[in-house]
Amino acid sequence: MDALPLYRQLADHYLGAIKAGTLPRGERMPSVRSMMRLHQVSLSTALQTCRVLESEGWVEARPRSGYFVRQPHRAAILPLEEPSILQAPDPAQYVGIHARVSDFIARGRSHPVRVNFSGARAAPEFYPSEQLKNAAIRAVRRHPEMLVRAAPPGGNAYFRAALARRALASGMVLSADEITITHGCIEALNLALRAVTQPGDTVAVESPTFYGLLQILESLGLRALEIPTSATRGISVDALDMAIQAYDNIRAVVVVPHLQNPLGSIMSDADKERLVQLCERHGIPLIEDDTYTALADGDAPLQALKSWDRSGNVIHCASLHKILAPGMRLGWMVAGKWQARVAMLKYAQTRDNEEWSQITAAEFLNSADYDRHLRKLRAALRPQRERIAETIAASFPAGTRLTLPQGGITMWLELPGRLPSTPVFDAALRQGILIAPGSMFSNSGRFDAFMRISCGARHTIEVEEAVRSLGQIVGGLLREAA
Amino acid sequence: MDALPLYRQLADHYLGAIKAGTLPRGERMPSVRSMMRLHQVSLSTALQTCRVLESEGWVEARPRSGYFVRQPHRAAILPLEEPSILQAPDPAQYVGIHARVSDFIARGRSHPVRVNFSGARAAPEFYPSEQLKNAAIRAVRRHPEMLVRAAPPGGNAYFRAALARRALASGMVLSADEITITHGCIEALNLALRAVTQPGDTVAVESPTFYGLLQILESLGLRALEIPTSATRGISVDALDMAIQAYDNIRAVVVVPHLQNPLGSIMSDADKERLVQLCERHGIPLIEDDTYTALADGDAPLQALKSWDRSGNVIHCASLHKILAPGMRLGWMVAGKWQARVAMLKYAQTRDNEEWSQITAAEFLNSADYDRHLRKLRAALRPQRERIAETIAASFPAGTRLTLPQGGITMWLELPGRLPSTPVFDAALRQGILIAPGSMFSNSGRFDAFMRISCGARHTIEVEEAVRSLGQIVGGLLREAA
Repeated sequence: MDALPLYRQLADHYLGAIKAGTLPRGERMPSVRSMMRLHQVSLSTALQTCRVLESEGWVEARPRSGYFVRQPHRAAILPLEEPSILQAPDPAQYVGIHARVSDFIARGRSHPVRVNFSGARAAPEFYPSEQLKNAAIRAVRRHPEMLVRAAPPGGNAYFRAALARRALASGMVLSADEITITHGCIEALNLALRAVTQPGDTVAVESPTFYGLLQILESLGLRALEIPTSATRGISVDALDMAIQAYDNIRAVVVVPHLQNPLGSIMSDADKERLVQLCERHGIPLIEDDTYTALADGDAPLQALKSWDRSGNVIHCASLHKILAPGMRLGWMVAGKWQARVAMLKYAQTRDNEEWSQITAAEFLNSADYDRHLRKLRAALRPQRERIAETIAASFPAGTRLTLPQGGITMWLELPGRLPSTPVFDAALRQGILIAPGSMFSNSGRFDAFMRISCGARHTIEVEEAVRSLGQIVGGLLREAA
Repeated sequence: MDALPLYRQLADHYLGAIKAGTLPRGERMPSVRSMMRLHQVSLSTALQTCRVLESEGWVEARPRSGYFVRQPHRAAILPLEEPSILQAPDPAQYVGIHARVSDFIARGRSHPVRVNFSGARAAPEFYPSEQLKNAAIRAVRRHPEMLVRAAPPGGNAYFRAALARRALASGMVLSADEITITHGCIEALNLALRAVTQPGDTVAVESPTFYGLLQILESLGLRALEIPTSATRGISVDALDMAIQAYDNIRAVVVVPHLQNPLGSIMSDADKERLVQLCERHGIPLIEDDTYTALADGDAPLQALKSWDRSGNVIHCASLHKILAPGMRLGWMVAGKWQARVAMLKYAQTRDNEEWSQITAAEFLNSADYDRHLRKLRAALRPQRERIAETIAASFPAGTRLTLPQGGITMWLELPGRLPSTPVFDAALRQGILIAPGSMFSNSGRFDAFMRISCGARHTIEVEEAVRSLGQIVGGLLREAA
């Protein structure tokens, strides 16, 4: 088994001590020589340990004195506020987001972009293209006939079995037959919503939520009922409960329980269980989007909402798109009591997926390479998130709010003074920097002063300076508004 | 350029003479020695010429006399009747076909099948799997990064350009940008219908038509208005005209102008032009499905409906699925004035297609291999259709009707005495033979006495005997019913 590099283990060891207060702020760190002796490591490992703690903001070097514990700037930044749930949510609205989203996307494409913070996947370099390429070549060499015969219904058996095995860790006990392969999680969400709703129905969604979901609702003629969602705890089950009692026409609930997009929240097991039971009790289908779960830090695998499902009321949708291969359309779903209806809709909408990419991914999923890849990706993303948060904390005006997620690719931040982020988008684009303004993430105007920042690219000087530039833009607009 | 094999050229030469009456029925064919001398060919070529004409039913061998011209049985078989268009079509109906179709498909999967006549693609051996495999490996070796980065919007540029080039032959002058790549023609039809209709709307379709289209209508909550369609001329433009005047809520027309599924008809240019102008005049979007066009015999390439489109009112949908690679989901569409809406729906429904299969196919489309493949496939399908028609003519009861299509993979036949084909399906399945009963091809009961037979498999003894068995089954059921 691949352990983390030694310097990373040592850095985490000291990080634990710092966060616990054992090494308080201002305390001098052990000298490099002491570390070498204490931990039996080389000089270069000890130096690397100090450097990585420094780059992550936890220690600072004082010339001829050594390293001293500090509080990173981001530790002082205001967290995102908890949403108010005292009043019932606004009534459901038909979604009218596509024009707005298309406009932002089109403008981002029409202007030269040096630094792109608007996406939700990691940069291509963080995905195992060489290994995937080799698996792909092996797959097509072994099974050339799959290019010229109809793909098997529901998906390739080998791939579905591999997914079922992997799903055990999330508490789901599935047979391969229960899994339908789709063109990404987007198609899975489409099929789930088409299976359980009709145009005009109301669907409860998190607020904010990712615009891909809002666009699906719009294209299906559904109404969105936005439920307050916390950056730390996820969707408010209490608010959802109130909404179900206030409005009797909610036909589905769509939730991203882990590393919610854009908030980054992770629901507790207690809340997840309550949510599943609430929807079960009221006979409202619960659709879960599991896109980012594998990118959560920590050792204990997160349990899917589906793991609490007793009656087939939960439709689990997932994808390898953000975690393994952004160039493949490999989604999957377990549709519970709607499996037959989903199978019909899938058949009528796109027939069965090509086998080639399924077999390629199956081989990878069944190997130790997959776990290694995920560990490397998570390990790469964490410092990138921390550095961006650090730079935001150091260069955005006071009053900016941000809550650092426990994993994943993106972060959500609130601008001070209710400053709208669309003018920030405009000014940033003129400097070749692309962000995702908050107005893309809700049907309401509630998040106009928010923005989502991607931490998926390697943290270069250029990225660092782009974040500073954003801070200057925000500061400048704030002064103008005052 | 690859010409047809010499024996095939010679056989076609004699076939022309036979069909023209220059070599009338009963006439003795030139001896093998005469052929060798007349045409300067080897003994084996001359023998092969006679054998292929014999197997196709045009000559018969009389011992110690030689080969004599005959009328193949199929030349005497009753053609399919022209549909009556004297009365206005039945009012539109919500489509309720899925349960029926699923049942037939499920039963076909649950019973061992020796000979499968129910599909609409050729057997895998007729597609160039080795060449596609090699193109696929080259593609992924050259561009491994395409596995780990988001696919380009609308489709891969190289592939779209290759499709645009190929489309010139059908009279369509397109820029690559106008082409949207989809998951098969099925997704293209879905997107086209979603772009121009809302649930509850009426769509005029051919009668009979392929059940894939009917399933799409059903899943979108659309109503089908079935327009009489001729096995020789295609959809009746007169009947469509009457329907448009009789019912004012027709929101789209869907037509398969070439090698219609299941009839096999090919529309004349005059009728195609009338159709385009009729829909243009009434502002009704015209959706064309071009799936089988490349499988039509004859030298002159068939002109697409889109080639007469002046205002963007025609949505052209096509696919490489049946003609190049049944294991790939490579469809495409040109949506005319609905391009932006189709792009939005595609993005919201399945995002963009994987690049790997597009690049693989593009390479193939740009090579002479593609044309060679199509010629070989067409050349292989023709005798298979003729032999099956011959066996049907020889072994089904009198009163059976069949019109031999000028290309393609399937044939449509009517059973005598209004015998329903569902009991034929049942009895055939018990013998391990699978057919597609006519009731799958319409929302009405109008085609219950019809069936579609696939000619996509190599014509072996087993296939020959299976057709005879079908004839016996039909004969037996007819006698019971009398």
